[in-house]
Amino acid sequence: MIYPRLAVIGCGLIGSSTILAARAAGVVREVAVADASAEHREQIKALGYADLVTGDIAEAVAGADLVVFAVPVMAMGEAARAAAPALKPGATVTDVGSVKGAVMDALSAALPETAFLVPGHPIAGTEQSGPAAGFAELFDKRWVILTPRPCEDDAYLEAVQRLADFWSAVGANVERMDAAHHDLVLAVTSHLPHLIAYNIVGTAADLEEVTQAEVMKYSAGGFRDFTRIAASDPTMWRDIFLTNKDAVLEILGRFTEDLQALSRAIRWGEGDKLFELFTRTRAIRRGIVAAGQESAEPNFGRDRGKHP
Amino acid sequence: MIYPRLAVIGCGLIGSSTILAARAAGVVREVAVADASAEHREQIKALGYADLVTGDIAEAVAGADLVVFAVPVMAMGEAARAAAPALKPGATVTDVGSVKGAVMDALSAALPETAFLVPGHPIAGTEQSGPAAGFAELFDKRWVILTPRPCEDDAYLEAVQRLADFWSAVGANVERMDAAHHDLVLAVTSHLPHLIAYNIVGTAADLEEVTQAEVMKYSAGGFRDFTRIAASDPTMWRDIFLTNKDAVLEILGRFTEDLQALSRAIRWGEGDKLFELFTRTRAIRRGIVAAGQESAEPNFGRDRGKHP
Repeated sequence: MIYPRLAVIGCGLIGSSTILAARAAGVVREVAVADASAEHREQIKALGYADLVTGDIAEAVAGADLVVFAVPVMAMGEAARAAAPALKPGATVTDVGSVKGAVMDALSAALPETAFLVPGHPIAGTEQSGPAAGFAELFDKRWVILTPRPCEDDAYLEAVQRLADFWSAVGANVERMDAAHHDLVLAVTSHLPHLIAYNIVGTAADLEEVTQAEVMKYSAGGFRDFTRIAASDPTMWRDIFLTNKDAVLEILGRFTEDLQALSRAIRWGEGDKLFELFTRTRAIRRGIVAAGQESAEPNFGRDRGKHP
Repeated sequence: MIYPRLAVIGCGLIGSSTILAARAAGVVREVAVADASAEHREQIKALGYADLVTGDIAEAVAGADLVVFAVPVMAMGEAARAAAPALKPGATVTDVGSVKGAVMDALSAALPETAFLVPGHPIAGTEQSGPAAGFAELFDKRWVILTPRPCEDDAYLEAVQRLADFWSAVGANVERMDAAHHDLVLAVTSHLPHLIAYNIVGTAADLEEVTQAEVMKYSAGGFRDFTRIAASDPTMWRDIFLTNKDAVLEILGRFTEDLQALSRAIRWGEGDKLFELFTRTRAIRRGIVAAGQESAEPNFGRDRGKHP
């Protein structure tokens, strides 16, 4: 038992998985949920996830030892303002947002000093959303990044450690990081890939010479992987790009520069430059496979095809 | 039995899979292989794929009813020149290259008029390469695009139909298309996705503020899918970009324009524009899933994570 009472604000894929994982690990006793959607609340009641299901954030957080905000990034501030008056002194408050600098600012401004604010980001998910999409194993062997304040107070450090223990108990690997650095790292490993995927799928949809039916039919040659990424939740991703603007534009600027150079190399037939880049990127993939982040096994061509 | 004697020139993933699939389907009796690599030839002998294994292309094609060129796109012309003097009159000659216009030109220039040239492209593969990577099921339910000449000669049309029957017999769906249209469709569904993936992995590798270890560690948020694509064979891909230059640069130009607009929308905080695009791309994904091109099932967060 780490937190006797857990409150989850926003019960989509991540919120519901947090509840199921915490219950499975036996680290919480009571669970309260607040969700703005009446339809979600009915689903949550039917699924039996929580002891209390409400549309009122203050009601949900009352008496909670851990409060997890799992709403879109730009909804965090309003949710925190609704929660603030009802928070138990000494409660730990965290979130699961994909951007940490903006969320840290929004939560800091809204919450009382008596709460221990420890922003967090579990790097886990599927392309599904909603309460019914949750499952207890979502965080198993996935990274959870915590971005605590630069504060040396013993009680605060203890609250950070307890939250790290909570995520470890549900199977995650926990890392601590400065919020600004988190936002830069994620701009590279997640935000730019999503932006590029959304963009290429949009470009393909607007072509006149190639039909959408053809694009879908021959998508096994690489495009299909992009469509999967570009099927992610629109609200969540709009908020991410608007709140991590500086890091995303910085990385996007570098990407675009590199792409111009690559375009020029193709136009001028500079095969050596292409070969050098393609060899270098292959080595990076091998590093990921060697680090055990993904299997090197062939997929037997069934669900994707790398040959163009 | 469709072709009594099959000759495969270049025995990597696609070449070896073609042999294994044809043998499994019982549509060939004898198989000859030519491969420029002594190491590959030893492997092919040890694997028992062929009745004849040689480094001499003319020796391999002698007496063959179907000749399949499975070498990188820019090596097709030279391979065809070596084969030309030894080709049996009435033999069908095809290839598996990812670009069809340039290959059609190179093969047409090299081959005698007595051969039936029917360029082809199986959209199938894995990120593995080499003779040992081949397997008989590679083409099962995958598309093979044939780009025959605009020729109404009965004997030619019969040769095209026989080649279509060959690919159908190994489990593929066969489509016929104009070579230039093929190159534009594949520029969208395969060549641009690969170029983008190579580029983003290169950009990430060159960052000073984020370490490669961090990029690999947190790659589950989208980046990892790109590294898989960017691990494809460097020679093959260099050749594709150099020989399908016009279509790739055309599609890349549109992609870049769209990306600039997206970048501007982020900079100016135009959330509605982002939301509209992200909603539209999600619908395209649903079209692919609905068409049965890929399962909609969640992956339980084990091998990839779409939550950022």
